[in-house]
Amino acid sequence: MSADSYEITKLNKVRVGNRADYQRATVHAILDEGFLAHVGFIDQERPIVVPMVYGRDGDTVYLHGAKATRMLKRLAGGAPVSITVTLLDGIVVGRSAFHHSANYRSVVVHGTTRPVTGAREKERALKIITDHLLAGRWDEVRPMSKKEEKATGVVAVDIEAASAKCRSGEPVDEESDYELPIWGGVIPVATVLGAPVGDSRLLDGVEVPTSVKRAVGGD
Amino acid sequence: MSADSYEITKLNKVRVGNRADYQRATVHAILDEGFLAHVGFIDQERPIVVPMVYGRDGDTVYLHGAKATRMLKRLAGGAPVSITVTLLDGIVVGRSAFHHSANYRSVVVHGTTRPVTGAREKERALKIITDHLLAGRWDEVRPMSKKEEKATGVVAVDIEAASAKCRSGEPVDEESDYELPIWGGVIPVATVLGAPVGDSRLLDGVEVPTSVKRAVGGD
Repeated sequence: MSADSYEITKLNKVRVGNRADYQRATVHAILDEGFLAHVGFIDQERPIVVPMVYGRDGDTVYLHGAKATRMLKRLAGGAPVSITVTLLDGIVVGRSAFHHSANYRSVVVHGTTRPVTGAREKERALKIITDHLLAGRWDEVRPMSKKEEKATGVVAVDIEAASAKCRSGEPVDEESDYELPIWGGVIPVATVLGAPVGDSRLLDGVEVPTSVKRAVGGD
Repeated sequence: MSADSYEITKLNKVRVGNRADYQRATVHAILDEGFLAHVGFIDQERPIVVPMVYGRDGDTVYLHGAKATRMLKRLAGGAPVSITVTLLDGIVVGRSAFHHSANYRSVVVHGTTRPVTGAREKERALKIITDHLLAGRWDEVRPMSKKEEKATGVVAVDIEAASAKCRSGEPVDEESDYELPIWGGVIPVATVLGAPVGDSRLLDGVEVPTSVKRAVGGD
C-alpha cells in the first residue's frame, strides 16, 4: 500500500456510487473525530455489533473492556472485526422519498484483533483510548493501579483494509422534480458537548480541568 | 416472550454489569430516537458493519438500499444480522482513567433478514423508513415512481432477540479517589439539528414544510 492511501482490495472496495475515499488522512481524521465505534465480530456464526470507545495510534486501533465480557473473551482470542465510525452531518431532504439521504462521514476498518498483554503497550493503549475520549486527560488523573490494569482487557487491531465514505451538500433530485413546489434542502446535524457538570462529590475549589475546557471549547 | 419484554436468551443476555434492559418500551424508544443504525452481517466469513437509515414497525426493523450494493445482495438472501443503535448522552469524567465512561442508551437487535418484495409491504416499509428520518415527510413529497421502487431493495428484520443497555449519571469512582483534588463529572453530549437550509434550486415562495419545522423544534 502507498503511504497516502489504503490499498483497495476485495474487502474494502466500495462498489456503488462515488463516495469512497481510501486516503489515510481522510480515514484517520474521521476515526479521530468520532467518540464511539461500532465494532462487529462473529460469535457462534452470528454477527454481533457493539458500541465501544476506542483510540488510534498510526494504523492501529485500540479497544478495551472488562475482561469478563463475552466480547473481550471473544476478541482476545484473535478475531476478524469490522470497526465502523460514523459522523452524522445532516439530514438531506429531497423532493421525493427516493432522494432523501444523510450527510455523513464514515470509516470501515477491517482487521484481526490481537491481545495486548505487554505492560508497556497496554499502558500506552489505555492512555491513547483515554486521551481520545478527552485529549490530555491521562496526565490529569490518578495513575492506574495494578488491579485496574489486570481487570482491563485491551486488544489492538492493525488496520488491514479501510475505506471512508462521505456525503455532503444538497439533495440530488430528479431534474423534473425541481419544478415542483416542494421544499428541498438540508437539516444540519451536529454532536454538541454541553457545559460540564461537576459531580456531587467534587471537593471545594477543584476547577474544571484543561482537558474538559478544551473539549467543550472554553479554552 | 411476554408482551412487555423480550425473552432473555443466549443471544441477547447481557452478562456483565447491571445496565441491561429487555423491556419492549425501552428498546422501541431507543430505536425510534436514533437516526442511524450500525448493521452487522457476515460476508466471506468476516463481519461487516455499515451505517444505515432504518425504520421500525412493531417488532420489525426495515432497512433499504440500492439493490446493486454488496450489502443489499447479501441481505436479500436472508442473513443473520445485528442491528445496533446508540445514543451518546455524555462523557463521564472520572478521577482515574479506569472510571472514565460514556453515558449512552443503546439497543442491539438480532434477527434474520427477509426480502420485502410484495408491493404493499414494500411501499409501507419505505414510508416507515422515510418518516423515521423525518416524521410526516412521506405525505409531503412527490409519490415514488415504479422505476425508483424497482431500484430500491428493502429487507425486513423481525426482532428475534433484543436488549438495551443504558448508562446515565455521575462517574462511579473509587471511594478513596473522592478525597483527591481531581475533577469528576459529566460532559453532556447531544445530537442537535440546526436551522434547515433550502437548496439552490428551491422555488420562490416554497416554505419550510411541517415535517422539517417539527424536527428542528420550530413547530
